[in-house]
Amino acid sequence: MTSQQTPPVYGVHSEVGRLRKVLVCAPGLAHRRLTPTNSDDLLFDDVMWVENAQRDHADFVDKLRERGVDVVELHDLLARTMAVPGARDWLLDRKIVPNEVGLGLVDGTRAYLESLEPAELARYLIGGLATGDLPEDYRSGYLALARESTGVREYLMPPLPNTLYTRDTTCWLYGGLTLNPLYWPARHDETLLMKAVYTFHPDYAGSTVWWGDPELDWGQATFEGGDIMPVGKGVVLMGMSERTSRQAITQVAKALFEAGTAEHVVVAGMPRLRSAMHLDTVFTFADRDLVTLYPAIMDGVHTFSLRPSDRSPGLELVDEAPASFVEVVAKALGLPKLRVVETGGDVYASERQQWDSGNNAVALEPGVVFTYDRNTQTNTLLRRAGVEVITIVGAELGRGRGGGHCMTCPIVRDPVDF
Amino acid sequence: MTSQQTPPVYGVHSEVGRLRKVLVCAPGLAHRRLTPTNSDDLLFDDVMWVENAQRDHADFVDKLRERGVDVVELHDLLARTMAVPGARDWLLDRKIVPNEVGLGLVDGTRAYLESLEPAELARYLIGGLATGDLPEDYRSGYLALARESTGVREYLMPPLPNTLYTRDTTCWLYGGLTLNPLYWPARHDETLLMKAVYTFHPDYAGSTVWWGDPELDWGQATFEGGDIMPVGKGVVLMGMSERTSRQAITQVAKALFEAGTAEHVVVAGMPRLRSAMHLDTVFTFADRDLVTLYPAIMDGVHTFSLRPSDRSPGLELVDEAPASFVEVVAKALGLPKLRVVETGGDVYASERQQWDSGNNAVALEPGVVFTYDRNTQTNTLLRRAGVEVITIVGAELGRGRGGGHCMTCPIVRDPVDF
Amino acid sequence: MTSQQTPPVYGVHSEVGRLRKVLVCAPGLAHRRLTPTNSDDLLFDDVMWVENAQRDHADFVDKLRERGVDVVELHDLLARTMAVPGARDWLLDRKIVPNEVGLGLVDGTRAYLESLEPAELARYLIGGLATGDLPEDYRSGYLALARESTGVREYLMPPLPNTLYTRDTTCWLYGGLTLNPLYWPARHDETLLMKAVYTFHPDYAGSTVWWGDPELDWGQATFEGGDIMPVGKGVVLMGMSERTSRQAITQVAKALFEAGTAEHVVVAGMPRLRSAMHLDTVFTFADRDLVTLYPAIMDGVHTFSLRPSDRSPGLELVDEAPASFVEVVAKALGLPKLRVVETGGDVYASERQQWDSGNNAVALEPGVVFTYDRNTQTNTLLRRAGVEVITIVGAELGRGRGGGHCMTCPIVRDPVDF
Amino acid sequence: MTSQQTPPVYGVHSEVGRLRKVLVCAPGLAHRRLTPTNSDDLLFDDVMWVENAQRDHADFVDKLRERGVDVVELHDLLARTMAVPGARDWLLDRKIVPNEVGLGLVDGTRAYLESLEPAELARYLIGGLATGDLPEDYRSGYLALARESTGVREYLMPPLPNTLYTRDTTCWLYGGLTLNPLYWPARHDETLLMKAVYTFHPDYAGSTVWWGDPELDWGQATFEGGDIMPVGKGVVLMGMSERTSRQAITQVAKALFEAGTAEHVVVAGMPRLRSAMHLDTVFTFADRDLVTLYPAIMDGVHTFSLRPSDRSPGLELVDEAPASFVEVVAKALGLPKLRVVETGGDVYASERQQWDSGNNAVALEPGVVFTYDRNTQTNTLLRRAGVEVITIVGAELGRGRGGGHCMTCPIVRDPVDF
Repeated sequence: MTSQQTPPVYGVHSEVGRLRKVLVCAPGLAHRRLTPTNSDDLLFDDVMWVENAQRDHADFVDKLRERGVDVVELHDLLARTMAVPGARDWLLDRKIVPNEVGLGLVDGTRAYLESLEPAELARYLIGGLATGDLPEDYRSGYLALARESTGVREYLMPPLPNTLYTRDTTCWLYGGLTLNPLYWPARHDETLLMKAVYTFHPDYAGSTVWWGDPELDWGQATFEGGDIMPVGKGVVLMGMSERTSRQAITQVAKALFEAGTAEHVVVAGMPRLRSAMHLDTVFTFADRDLVTLYPAIMDGVHTFSLRPSDRSPGLELVDEAPASFVEVVAKALGLPKLRVVETGGDVYASERQQWDSGNNAVALEPGVVFTYDRNTQTNTLLRRAGVEVITIVGAELGRGRGGGHCMTCPIVRDPVDF
Repeated sequence: MTSQQTPPVYGVHSEVGRLRKVLVCAPGLAHRRLTPTNSDDLLFDDVMWVENAQRDHADFVDKLRERGVDVVELHDLLARTMAVPGARDWLLDRKIVPNEVGLGLVDGTRAYLESLEPAELARYLIGGLATGDLPEDYRSGYLALARESTGVREYLMPPLPNTLYTRDTTCWLYGGLTLNPLYWPARHDETLLMKAVYTFHPDYAGSTVWWGDPELDWGQATFEGGDIMPVGKGVVLMGMSERTSRQAITQVAKALFEAGTAEHVVVAGMPRLRSAMHLDTVFTFADRDLVTLYPAIMDGVHTFSLRPSDRSPGLELVDEAPASFVEVVAKALGLPKLRVVETGGDVYASERQQWDSGNNAVALEPGVVFTYDRNTQTNTLLRRAGVEVITIVGAELGRGRGGGHCMTCPIVRDPVDF
Repeated sequence: MTSQQTPPVYGVHSEVGRLRKVLVCAPGLAHRRLTPTNSDDLLFDDVMWVENAQRDHADFVDKLRERGVDVVELHDLLARTMAVPGARDWLLDRKIVPNEVGLGLVDGTRAYLESLEPAELARYLIGGLATGDLPEDYRSGYLALARESTGVREYLMPPLPNTLYTRDTTCWLYGGLTLNPLYWPARHDETLLMKAVYTFHPDYAGSTVWWGDPELDWGQATFEGGDIMPVGKGVVLMGMSERTSRQAITQVAKALFEAGTAEHVVVAGMPRLRSAMHLDTVFTFADRDLVTLYPAIMDGVHTFSLRPSDRSPGLELVDEAPASFVEVVAKALGLPKLRVVETGGDVYASERQQWDSGNNAVALEPGVVFTYDRNTQTNTLLRRAGVEVITIVGAELGRGRGGGHCMTCPIVRDPVDF
Repeated sequence: MTSQQTPPVYGVHSEVGRLRKVLVCAPGLAHRRLTPTNSDDLLFDDVMWVENAQRDHADFVDKLRERGVDVVELHDLLARTMAVPGARDWLLDRKIVPNEVGLGLVDGTRAYLESLEPAELARYLIGGLATGDLPEDYRSGYLALARESTGVREYLMPPLPNTLYTRDTTCWLYGGLTLNPLYWPARHDETLLMKAVYTFHPDYAGSTVWWGDPELDWGQATFEGGDIMPVGKGVVLMGMSERTSRQAITQVAKALFEAGTAEHVVVAGMPRLRSAMHLDTVFTFADRDLVTLYPAIMDGVHTFSLRPSDRSPGLELVDEAPASFVEVVAKALGLPKLRVVETGGDVYASERQQWDSGNNAVALEPGVVFTYDRNTQTNTLLRRAGVEVITIVGAELGRGRGGGHCMTCPIVRDPVDF
């Protein structure tokens, strides 16, 4: 079906080059499902005022578009995908199965989902389908068993509120992408949705996939985009964290090396802390030679390098200690040094701002970044360093512990000169 | 010192009568101390953007003042109190002691606090004095020992961020007040500050105290204003919760009965849940015969009545089961029934709104209440019931799990007719 | 390889009929890996004195053997399996893969495991292979990356301490078995080991498998033997718990109905509590018409029945409320009633004894059971009811929250008459 | 009343000199109150098989007595004290008050406790008095209110299971003792019981009290005997931990210096970890120049010295860094060095043994110690170092996370020569 198409020419060639096309996901039904008792299971720290989160997210999108970025929204993308012949069957064949829905509920659930318009279907695919959402005509007596169960299992399709953080699910690394096996089971289905998009949507089918497939079991090899940064010059930074494992890092590095698309992976060995779940929660780029970072965590990072090798397994590992991560990255990029803007404020404020995604900047172009409004001290330091800081309202969006970098998955970004 | 003064004529005679004078506490230094790692110890669920919390709180105060309420702010009140001869000594004699500050640090700390203007002193009394706040001239080698310690003990005076919830610390019940022994040790010093005010401030000294003294150890007899409502007609509602114990309830009831100020205490036996920490988190009045409540909790309340008795211990206890709390309260007020507005929205939204203080309304006068803006569905239901709802921005203020009722301690409120 | 063999004639036809052959797993290396910091991840409440746990387990095995039971031990079984040509390759092909071991460590790890005697290999398969266990000759520089990681991932093969509870991993239900998808990822590999046994071991290959395959992803369809009881007369009891889902229950019921091996599945809808993780932690049989149960949990069970149906999906569901689980089970067995022995002692002791596996009896034959020694009050009540109670020392073995029923997987058990 | 008596001549002059008299407390009613749901509140990690804990404790006592130690048991001591005229009134006046028991229940509770024999009263003083323990004749309607409450408050007197660890509550430091303000409110009443003993019991009244009084509020100045070691030569070791604060340490040091009983307090600045709650959980003496310690914690200790000074506040503080704690202690005792036996076994076993009180030895005399049987590797290392190790069965006793050192409060112990 996709054989006659010209493959799309997408690619992300840096962390700060001109952003041209980006994937985001607006808050919606999935966040309306969040309550104080289920938010932990769904990996959110607190509940949201969804209407305001939507308003603030729309404002973020508007600002991106005003600056010339082509912003793709996941609900729209998925709705468009579901309109492609065969796509709906492919996805429902994988999601509406006895292992997930339960015997006795498969037929009714499938029939109901078949009856929906693509946009409505996309809304439930992301927002989840609760047992109570099934109209009377599609119900069976088996709902009694489902209702007796509690928690996540009351759903016939689980809500996926973490789609808000499109950064994690797929990564464009130079001219191809990865379909990431995410750490938490509660997020696994996100990648399946993205595989549907990259298999069926006419604009995306035919893209080069370096690694990953949500239909396989990846075991300990979990990989999340918040840890991954294609910084240019054939270099990729990868945080080795609770969520991104060495098992995955080495496989992806090998795939990139074999494809000739990268020559150096710099691995940041991170501590296992909720506050530092991904590399981009404590380290991001704001300009070609400028990073913002949280020293309390970054000072403890142990750095390794992976490079191609002729010998099995095709990789060479170098322990970079005692060089710091920042030093290794600068050298990899051929820069004499990286300028550093640390999280601002006193000991209390800096801890609070890191927590509130103060270091989670996403660049529009070199020296122009988006961050949350609330981290005023870090934002001021960035501005003093010559960075243009455009703010996003973070009162609601920030409650899931992710900022502008987490909420964006670049699809096309230019390289920068070093 | 206070002997020549005419005692002030304050008093709270209902939950919804015209509010004339109220105590609040603006966010400030104490909230700047909150970080992700200490917020649990300080009883906050999340950190705040303090500047915005201040803005939103100031807006709340402005709206109260526009409506003719005399709003007293705790920092101001305490600063004015600290300017009264003897007051500063009285308070520092109790706070800057070896048991709290540590030997070797008493003299320097005291000397520094003596050197401050009243307003600055008040700021530290509420905001806490960290070891790092002590200027070089006042330091001693003993700071090395303090710095080695961690957590709350790095403070020479602890921060008191829960002063934001002035409702809890003292309760005006008709013509007198209680100085409450609060449940968590982290809040004990709040009541000491209030005792200083009621002992030394010329406008407050001489007020009648029904019960409580922060200089005594009350053991299990803990009492928090969020559980207490003087609803009029000699009736007081008291939530028996994690934080307000039967040991305290019976003592306060007895004191009120002996003073002839109340004739009936209705006790709501509450479940022990973080989401329902006080009665006013699940039940408040919005009009003389209208309450807003969260049924998932209130349906499980077991109701008792306490009335005066000639027999020891001066109280009579009646188990009101199977009558519901709402029924017992209606009857106590001589009303045929109470109209009830339940938390709005579907099963997800109502749980979320209760969590976000959706039922924590505070009345300006009968039928006019303040609530957080974010609980739009409950607010709509209140409006449909004829209530005028004035909103407070809750994005930051609500993160400590308290709303308008929690943030206000009425000092003068008129009775209502029943 | 197994084609020429006569399939073994194993089967479990009741909960209390004569026990003839049973699978257990002795404590060992996996339990030596338990520490206070990793025990939660490995699903143990506390650490063990492994030598004493081994002594107490050996004593349990001795008592079983003295009574004529053929006791099979998992380390032995697996060692024997690993000696079968092809078995070692089959298993290592599935375990020593980049997703688990990490690129750069596959070859060395595999080579080391190839070099081991079957018994030593079995010891590591159950006990886990830490990075530090790999001899110098088999190491590569990639160990540096693994050492930087923490927790479970320091292992090249994870320890499987919950193999102690052989009950959960496979269930003989009448003449065939299930290979169970276990709830916690930390236990998944247990089932893979059992598949190796049932595929290669000459005594077990050829057994009928009703359902389950550890090489497939079962999603929400998780199933643990502690919830499953083939009580006879074509009836199977299934606890619907945190760990055993309706998605699995309905599939297994259907498989049993289609095979004609069962006609009635009684589902116990359990609350989600750590203390009641499986049906057999609160309900077991001690005689043909006698059960021991913990009323605080069992009183809240909601009971359903599943029976074969001609209509899709081949099952019929009946909500049995308001009949109690005990009543439904009695009726299913054609008994006028079940005699019930509740957990003994006052309110404190009964809660403690349930926690200490007081209701987790396993029968040798009708009226003869094994239980832990520490639950003296429940044991006394069983004895007064005419049951012969043989005790197991539980001081160490009980710390993982499982008793005699959990530690045994019957392979051959006779039916009983009803 | 005590004026005519000759003061007793008790005293503890070292950590390893001949132990002559010691206070212990047998497991009993308080431990029968422990359940999985309340054990956290009562500071126990797990529930006990009380009968076996009693057997193992009795065996420990027997071994002490066989070796010539005069063992005093707290239930006996308290019973004897309660038989002294005035003692019962003194204690009940402080415990059976409205703040603890609740109005309406004071008279009945007091009357019931007055009716008891001393031994039975002592049993309830330690074991707690539940509302259900009050006989019908002594009950009032107010019990309904108490029953509606949950948790600790169902008690009219709280159970004190941590009396098992007599080490913490009082400390004999050379010729006098401290009555310690314990960290957790759940333990406060332990010290009140001990004050009754030291006020009224003829053998103990008149003892010199250096510091502490359970009738006063000590704020942050908390002090627990597990952190305190009078090692001889006028030196006292004090762990500055979660439970023993600098506020208390400096006060006790000052009191000892003023009395001339000590000249040097060595402070071990400990990390705040549940596994290292007291100094004696990671460091104890086994011979005059031999200690057993857990290096993973002790390596991180920051050491300070306190010595008498003429200048206010009568103390001089020296930061001993970079000298290690062991080096500072050796020097203070005039020893060239301390021999060190580290926790035995590999990385798993040593962590497990520390957790199981492997370093919590208590000396009978130089080179003879009691430890739990389960820590076989550490015990072997001690034996190889020439120490005679007598074992205590720890399967049940150890579940509250305390060993032989924690369970003993020496009253008379000889000095040693250095």
